[in-house]
Amino acid sequence: MKKNNKITSRELDFAQWYTDIVKEAGLATYSPIKGSLIIEEYGYAIWESMQEVLDDMFKKTGHKNVYMPLFINESLLNKEKDHIEGFAPEVAWVTHGGNEKLEERLCVRPTSETLFSDYYSKKIKSYRDLPRLYNQWCSVVRWEKETRPFLRSREFLWQEGHTVHETEKEAREETLKMLDVYETFFKEYLAIPVIKGRKTEKEKFAGAVETYTIEAMMHNGIILQSGTTHYFGTNFSKPFEITFLDRNNELQYAHQSSWGVSTRMIGALIMTHGDDNGLIIPPKIAPTQVVIIPIGEDEKVVQKAKELETSLLKNNIRVIVDDSPKTPGFKFAQNEMLGIPLRIEFGLRDLEKNQIVLARRDDYSKKEVSLDEDLNELVSNILEEIQKDIYNKALARREERTYKCTSKEELEDIVKNKPGFIKAMWCEDENCETALKEIGGLKSRCIPFEEEHFYDKCICCGRKAKKMLYWGIQY
Amino acid sequence: MKKNNKITSRELDFAQWYTDIVKEAGLATYSPIKGSLIIEEYGYAIWESMQEVLDDMFKKTGHKNVYMPLFINESLLNKEKDHIEGFAPEVAWVTHGGNEKLEERLCVRPTSETLFSDYYSKKIKSYRDLPRLYNQWCSVVRWEKETRPFLRSREFLWQEGHTVHETEKEAREETLKMLDVYETFFKEYLAIPVIKGRKTEKEKFAGAVETYTIEAMMHNGIILQSGTTHYFGTNFSKPFEITFLDRNNELQYAHQSSWGVSTRMIGALIMTHGDDNGLIIPPKIAPTQVVIIPIGEDEKVVQKAKELETSLLKNNIRVIVDDSPKTPGFKFAQNEMLGIPLRIEFGLRDLEKNQIVLARRDDYSKKEVSLDEDLNELVSNILEEIQKDIYNKALARREERTYKCTSKEELEDIVKNKPGFIKAMWCEDENCETALKEIGGLKSRCIPFEEEHFYDKCICCGRKAKKMLYWGIQY
Repeated sequence: MKKNNKITSRELDFAQWYTDIVKEAGLATYSPIKGSLIIEEYGYAIWESMQEVLDDMFKKTGHKNVYMPLFINESLLNKEKDHIEGFAPEVAWVTHGGNEKLEERLCVRPTSETLFSDYYSKKIKSYRDLPRLYNQWCSVVRWEKETRPFLRSREFLWQEGHTVHETEKEAREETLKMLDVYETFFKEYLAIPVIKGRKTEKEKFAGAVETYTIEAMMHNGIILQSGTTHYFGTNFSKPFEITFLDRNNELQYAHQSSWGVSTRMIGALIMTHGDDNGLIIPPKIAPTQVVIIPIGEDEKVVQKAKELETSLLKNNIRVIVDDSPKTPGFKFAQNEMLGIPLRIEFGLRDLEKNQIVLARRDDYSKKEVSLDEDLNELVSNILEEIQKDIYNKALARREERTYKCTSKEELEDIVKNKPGFIKAMWCEDENCETALKEIGGLKSRCIPFEEEHFYDKCICCGRKAKKMLYWGIQY
Repeated sequence: MKKNNKITSRELDFAQWYTDIVKEAGLATYSPIKGSLIIEEYGYAIWESMQEVLDDMFKKTGHKNVYMPLFINESLLNKEKDHIEGFAPEVAWVTHGGNEKLEERLCVRPTSETLFSDYYSKKIKSYRDLPRLYNQWCSVVRWEKETRPFLRSREFLWQEGHTVHETEKEAREETLKMLDVYETFFKEYLAIPVIKGRKTEKEKFAGAVETYTIEAMMHNGIILQSGTTHYFGTNFSKPFEITFLDRNNELQYAHQSSWGVSTRMIGALIMTHGDDNGLIIPPKIAPTQVVIIPIGEDEKVVQKAKELETSLLKNNIRVIVDDSPKTPGFKFAQNEMLGIPLRIEFGLRDLEKNQIVLARRDDYSKKEVSLDEDLNELVSNILEEIQKDIYNKALARREERTYKCTSKEELEDIVKNKPGFIKAMWCEDENCETALKEIGGLKSRCIPFEEEHFYDKCICCGRKAKKMLYWGIQY
């Protein structure tokens, strides 16, 4: 099925395959600023499509958007000690404004817990002011040493939700609710199955009591941390003095959460569904769902293409006609590269037979369809089928590459030969977790919500196992 | 009509009136970072509403969104000399990433001509690659000394369009087309009349051949530059080497434009329509168009409120029910503060009379309406009327405060006593323009598209007048 010479085969060089798609599909390109990406028009269109759905999900769960400053005073960033320890090594510092040296350095936000906490401390006086459920869409900067388009860069786009609540219970519920929102978005829209769980103490967010995560397996068995939600308890509300008078007129510290997903999701899309001919975009998120390619320049063909376009558009199907003066073969390859889920093609001879051809991007299957059929319904149904099928394909692949391990040797063998999700029992001692990290870039992914107990001993020390951990090599 | 004690009267102190509304309506608040604003939920909802309409207008005129980096290398910023001269005094500099000093300073983008030009230089080879019509929504930083919410701050949100074309003609057409888009948006959506024109050489954008502008008069006669579009000619394409092979296979420099509007538009909304009781938001842009306030807690009243809400929502009217446990008077004041265009109020006695009351925010008029009427249509019509009426009111005020001046004494008198738009004839000598700037903060606004010739002599030097200029005190 390999047809596109511009893309390196996945089997040959997965990293190069990824980079080729990013470039050839016009998703992103390098900028003159080291480690910063330019998100090009097609990449940004996918991001807008993701934003639209997520923003709607956030609003339906009661959240409002706001905008906090890009800069954070050094003293403000320093207020929560775990937080600053976690982020200080990777922030960019502004030291001069115009021609003057600043009295206090400003960091470019790597995340905005400190700004939101400062804001909440000023706004919240009583339990009546709670909860506050805010989100912001913005760019953040983290001074990464090694960068890779969408997966790790010095600047990226994301959303960060920051909420504040009256009780621990409410804040914990919010933390888990937003993890569910992310899971639903990945499953229903991106067609990506995820493992939900809690990060270990070692891997949790700087400043959090608990961090929850959705983890997805890429085509090569590497694991992508795809979205996280954090329960902060009073870790920020104490240093920032976010207090309120409760229902008994007593002063209490508020409980907080935060949660975020980023343009990294575009990387997840590429590496979950893409193949050797380019992207495969799930229909629900595809900027263009259907491309119509008229073959030949006969007036009737061109006419029919426009007719179909109008009819599909009316039925809220995102469709374009590609009638550019290029060969059909070139156009097929180009639209496969872009991952447009469905192609409609026909020439004069098809029309004479009263038919058109539908070609699916995901499995390359083609089908001749009579023009007497209800094409709007047919196209809708096929798009739904594609959405379902690519999810199931990703799920089957994940299941095939999920292993239960009971010994270190076994684990080493998997990491070396066919990485994926590795389930292993754990005694809950952080030393054992650290020891396993020695093995080929392995890192604990999460303690899953769906726990299993398939072996009695810790894979590392042999003592009594208490929890099952998911492991994987991470991006 | 003054009812709200939290807002200073406009007559008493216009600047304080403005600040009070920004605060009390929850539009924005100060952050711990000097000169940077927090855009709060209601302010951001208005911004989202503006973005939605504008983004759609941009896309319908063929533009696509992309995202350029936040940072610009110092050497890249230096490439166009007028541009760097204009912006260097007001940019923020990043000098450290993590714990390391950077080899080259990075400025935080004050605007992105340089990044787009660098990108275009790499992407464009042939006339077939043209035009490129891109826009981005982002935040920019300019190290202003004096700041004022939405009007002038160290960081603000905006959109910046950057386009590149085969010919001067096309680039010039784009520059004027986008000015028309802005004018339409101001007129049709924000209900703000604007003067369209060209900036003088002295006032044009750093790096532009020509700058066009829409200028709006605020309630106090002060003028707000509300949106600009720039024709760059080859000023950027030469230093950045944006060249292409033309239809005769000859190498040419491309022609460029850029254009932008910002959160400053929120300031324009406040100062054009607001009154002593708060905001007045034009219905087409209002996050909430109608608020229903049931009076009393009778089941029938509450029931009717919900019924009305459902029915209006179905007709795409943005409506909320305010059934919070506060007094009707408090709710009226609060919703007037927010500038919600229409209030529907009723108690049990109204329902017994088979009626409800509609109260307009803009002119405080009230009307009893029978429940037998088609309320969806009625409400739609009233919203349209309000949209039209507040535009006409702003237009009448502008006309009342637009003066033709033939002498400096006259001009000084107007500036001192009742500022507004001042039309004056000009010899086109920049010295005369500079001389007039001595008078109380006066600045030339633009050479209008609708030229007039009402006097033969330059208001400053008395020589032969060539152009009519608009003058005003600016924000």
